[in-house]
Amino acid sequence: MASRTASPLLHPDESEIDFFAVLSALCDPVRLSIVRALDQRTEVACGTFDLPVAKSALSRHFRVLRESGLIRQRDDGTRRLNTLRRDELDRRFPGFLDLVLREAAR
Amino acid sequence: MASRTASPLLHPDESEIDFFAVLSALCDPVRLSIVRALDQRTEVACGTFDLPVAKSALSRHFRVLRESGLIRQRDDGTRRLNTLRRDELDRRFPGFLDLVLREAAR
Repeated sequence: MASRTASPLLHPDESEIDFFAVLSALCDPVRLSIVRALDQRTEVACGTFDLPVAKSALSRHFRVLRESGLIRQRDDGTRRLNTLRRDELDRRFPGFLDLVLREAAR
Repeated sequence: MASRTASPLLHPDESEIDFFAVLSALCDPVRLSIVRALDQRTEVACGTFDLPVAKSALSRHFRVLRESGLIRQRDDGTRRLNTLRRDELDRRFPGFLDLVLREAAR
């Protein structure tokens, strides 16, 4: 996604990740698809996701994922790169992400 | 709740419980409150829950919980009794309900 706002990319600290914000973020099929894709690779640019939603909706989904604590985002030039916060989530909610990914793959 | 429809109370079999239906059911504070209350007692009548929602909304919340597989309901005269499907959920999604209840209690 080429357009960028000047606002900083806020992320909750590991200790501040709220379980129900994570749950809520995962209750959307598009966001779940993104999480599944990010389980395979790190630092994936937003623009490379081929999902059936408008760019603005996709931006919103990424923001919900970031604000919930599921993903970390950083800007690299015009690209916004996304990484699943796997280790932190595993520490906070042991076994949860494994369960989510296993059930999503069924 | 005194009014009853004649439709049978449908429950998914243990093997048919969908993780994301459960997740989605839990993403509502009223339903989460009900689940927490049912973790303490079994066969609790719908009418005994003192929650800040209209009766019709409460009925809908119980239905969502039942259809997701989180609770079992049975009618006993004019009362509808609710029980958390704890053992079944623990078998299907080990550790998940413990995590939900622990995080809800934070």
